[in-house]
Parts: sequence; structure tokens; C-alpha cells
Amino acid sequence: MSNANTVLIGKKPTMNYVLACITFFNGGAKEVNVKARGKAISRAIDVAEVVRRKFLPDVKVNAIAIGTDQIQPHDEEAQLSNVSTIEITLKR
Amino acid sequence: MSNANTVLIGKKPTMNYVLACITFFNGGAKEVNVKARGKAISRAIDVAEVVRRKFLPDVKVNAIAIGTDQIQPHDEEAQLSNVSTIEITLKR
Repeated sequence: MSNANTVLIGKKPTMNYVLACITFFNGGAKEVNVKARGKAISRAIDVAEVVRRKFLPDVKVNAIAIGTDQIQPHDEEAQLSNVSTIEITLKR
Repeated sequence: MSNANTVLIGKKPTMNYVLACITFFNGGAKEVNVKARGKAISRAIDVAEVVRRKFLPDVKVNAIAIGTDQIQPHDEEAQLSNVSTIEITLKR
């Protein structure tokens, strides 16, 4: 999978990311990946649900993958910490 | 699917729910469902990742489903609000 058509979820309002997904689909994309980690994961699911329920009913959740990333804290002597990740593939 | 072997994620520490999953598996369960909604969703993924990566490497993520629940606020005149949900099926 390439990184094309990826929406990375951060701390902005949910609707910003919903709009980003809709823009990809309206530009002809067949698939959009919604990625998030840590506390943004619940917002990623909100985005996927709002896109398919409110705006683009022909979009389906094609796949959901979860995983773990290791994060190097700013303090370099601190231990690596783990953060959960999600990738939701929306398909038209 | 029955509601047997379901761990509903709330606001307690992640390890409480990890232990609940491990207890089900050690009691002979073949499948455990981890369910959460709203902000607890990211903790649900943490639980699934910790169970399979740290404690029970033979456990796999068999399925992940997302959805939306409608919530009636305490104020009965308020509008229904939507909350995202996740259900992660862990299989040994």
C-alpha cells in the first residue's frame, strides 16, 4: 500500500478530517486510509463513521488493522514507550 | 454471537481489562470480545495489543468491527447524540 490518500488523524476537530476524506473521494479516489495512534484512535473511528453514515453511504469499511508503534521520548534516557495504532481503509 | 466472554472497556487502568481477557483465555475460552465506545476505544486497542504481544502470543485479532450507538442524554429534551463503538474479537 502506498501512502497516497491517507488522512492522519490528530487533534483538530473531527469534521476537518471528514472533509479531507470526502475531498479524496470526490477527487476520484477509490480508497482512503484513515490512520491514528494513541488517544486520536477514537476520533479516527468517528471520522470513518461520519463519512459513511452522513455523507457517502456508498463508502464501506474495507479493512481495519491495529498495531503498536514504539515511541522514543524526548528525554533520551527514558525507556521506549508503546502506543497503539489503527488504520481504517475506506473503499468506495 | 453470544455475550459470553465479553470484556467491556471503561475508565479503569488498562491492565485490569488485560487481566480480565487473560482470565477468560486461561479458563478455556477460545474467543474473547473486547468492546468499547467513545474515548475508551483507544484503551480497547491497548488491551488487545498488550494481551497478544506481552502475554498470549498465540492469541490473534480475528475481527474488528466499528459502529455507532445513539445515546439519550440525561436531559430528556436534548437531542440524541452519536457515539462510535468498537468490537475486537480475539481468538486463540
